Amino acid sequence: MLPEWVTQKCPEISTVHREAAIARQAQLTKPTGALGRLEQLAIELAGLQAVEKPRAARVPIIIFAGDHGIVAQGVSAYPQAVTIAMMANFASGGAAISVLARELGSTLEVVDAGTLAESAMPGVVTDKPRLGTRDFSVEAALAPAELAFALEAGRRAVGRAEASQPDLLIFGEMGIGNTTTSAAIAASLLGISAEEIAGAGTGVDAVGRTHKVRVIEAAIAHHGVAGASPETILCAVGGLEIAAITGAIIAAAQARIPVLIDGFIVSVAALAAVRLNPSCRPFLLPSHQSAEQGHRLVLRALDAQPLISLDLRLGEGSGAAIALPLVRSACALHNDMATFAQANVPDRPS
Amino acid sequence: MLPEWVTQKCPEISTVHREAAIARQAQLTKPTGALGRLEQLAIELAGLQAVEKPRAARVPIIIFAGDHGIVAQGVSAYPQAVTIAMMANFASGGAAISVLARELGSTLEVVDAGTLAESAMPGVVTDKPRLGTRDFSVEAALAPAELAFALEAGRRAVGRAEASQPDLLIFGEMGIGNTTTSAAIAASLLGISAEEIAGAGTGVDAVGRTHKVRVIEAAIAHHGVAGASPETILCAVGGLEIAAITGAIIAAAQARIPVLIDGFIVSVAALAAVRLNPSCRPFLLPSHQSAEQGHRLVLRALDAQPLISLDLRLGEGSGAAIALPLVRSACALHNDMATFAQANVPDRPS
Repeated sequence: MLPEWVTQKCPEISTVHREAAIARQAQLTKPTGALGRLEQLAIELAGLQAVEKPRAARVPIIIFAGDHGIVAQGVSAYPQAVTIAMMANFASGGAAISVLARELGSTLEVVDAGTLAESAMPGVVTDKPRLGTRDFSVEAALAPAELAFALEAGRRAVGRAEASQPDLLIFGEMGIGNTTTSAAIAASLLGISAEEIAGAGTGVDAVGRTHKVRVIEAAIAHHGVAGASPETILCAVGGLEIAAITGAIIAAAQARIPVLIDGFIVSVAALAAVRLNPSCRPFLLPSHQSAEQGHRLVLRALDAQPLISLDLRLGEGSGAAIALPLVRSACALHNDMATFAQANVPDRPS
Repeated sequence: MLPEWVTQKCPEISTVHREAAIARQAQLTKPTGALGRLEQLAIELAGLQAVEKPRAARVPIIIFAGDHGIVAQGVSAYPQAVTIAMMANFASGGAAISVLARELGSTLEVVDAGTLAESAMPGVVTDKPRLGTRDFSVEAALAPAELAFALEAGRRAVGRAEASQPDLLIFGEMGIGNTTTSAAIAASLLGISAEEIAGAGTGVDAVGRTHKVRVIEAAIAHHGVAGASPETILCAVGGLEIAAITGAIIAAAQARIPVLIDGFIVSVAALAAVRLNPSCRPFLLPSHQSAEQGHRLVLRALDAQPLISLDLRLGEGSGAAIALPLVRSACALHNDMATFAQANVPDRPS
């Protein structure tokens, strides 16, 4: 059912490079540990990239968009047409992630992984098995072959990005209704209630959220997927853009490219990736703690500590893009600071 | 006793620009509030800078260095010679803040505001009333005229920076022993115990910290400065680089230049600034939550929410420099995103 590559093992962390990075941090002109999380980040990245000098210079951003049949049940604050309109906005440079990509010097690829768009759009790569998912309150969102297609679409996007030899990758998403889909996937994967994990999304009110929770609970019961295998869950209540990101994360990790994980939806895709292929876990670098209520639970399940917590809840990969400069600072400090010996600064008495 | 300018009123926030920024945020192609703290930051900055498009492009960094007589009491993990050695490291480009300044495209000015250096050093502006402070466990750290000189030195540095029309300013510090001095100032200003506020600094152990607390408590009692005026406290237990930063913060605010506030020591200087001249408060933008234990209490007293919390405890202005890209992202998003009308994206039904 799953493409064979999905479960192939990712490379090991380079212990040699990791230990060299630890040794270097202790020689830089600062009290040991004084750069806190940024020291750990540089050390981790050196081990993942298997290099002496970790880098976060070339960081392509890829956005996967998809539509969701569950929107028919009135779970979103915005009309479904926003998915396609925002794809155009990404491509024409007006969206938050477009602005951030320019600021960061990142390329931005927009992949239509499953929207309702009936024809190709300028500046958008179309790579989808169908137009939107089925309404999972009624039937399975995806057939197994459609799930496989979406995973492959993610892998194909990573393949295109590899030409530029990326240091890291950022994946983003767009899809009206996809916090509902993500909450259904996460609740099923974690075996917890939708009440715990479903949030306001783009901004439903308390009544809207209660409705959203009921829709998700009913669907999980209908499909009987609480605690089921990730592929079963992704077919029953999944999303095409989410499955594409799951595939992209696994493919990136297999190519030794760490991924800066965005907010709730990308984290749910990452959780599915880790459940499908646990060896990809070290390559996930969490970026931010979203305001979406379920994100904390998903990060905990991933055992991941975000770098920032700024009440962001936009998606599009924007949280990861906003956090990227912190990773760049970590690399610059690690690579470019003088050692005590070089600067002739007395170290503390040992 | 204080220079007259210290208490002169800072400009008002521009309500017109602040409200225009709020209105613009509501029109950008994202759910309202989805960019969380970054929306607030852009709005606040528009009001402070009194502009339509807030900017954080030109951000000079100024480091003030000073030595501390209290080091004779064995309060630091590093030898006192490190202060001068690190000044040289700042100037020659090997320190953390030197690396960050290059990454950010910021100029870095190093001011010797009171180290023990007996002659001018290349790449360092010497502007000090004496070599180091007196040991405040024995006598007042500074005479009133020396405090006034240090406040003026801060103002002079801002005057030099103004030539480049800065959008923001970052002040940093270097001085072996200055977490002890800062803890003594903060405990006195806030009327709380040194036990609550004194931390490990560059890395004293538990025994060292207990000693540090005793030294501070004894000094506060000796000088009788708990709850005294800021100028009395700064003379009794102050530091030259800290007083220079206090002066620089007030001068920047008077010139309508917001200041991105670094960690514990700069925050203590900021607290002294706000106590001397409350009208400067709106111009303080907190950057990070330091690992130094007293920082939380000082930020609470300033009613300030930091942007990041990454266990940094280096000083040098490094926390503010690491947070600066977040402010730049906030500005870019505010200024460059498309509106719903421009992008032809449907807004949520109202």
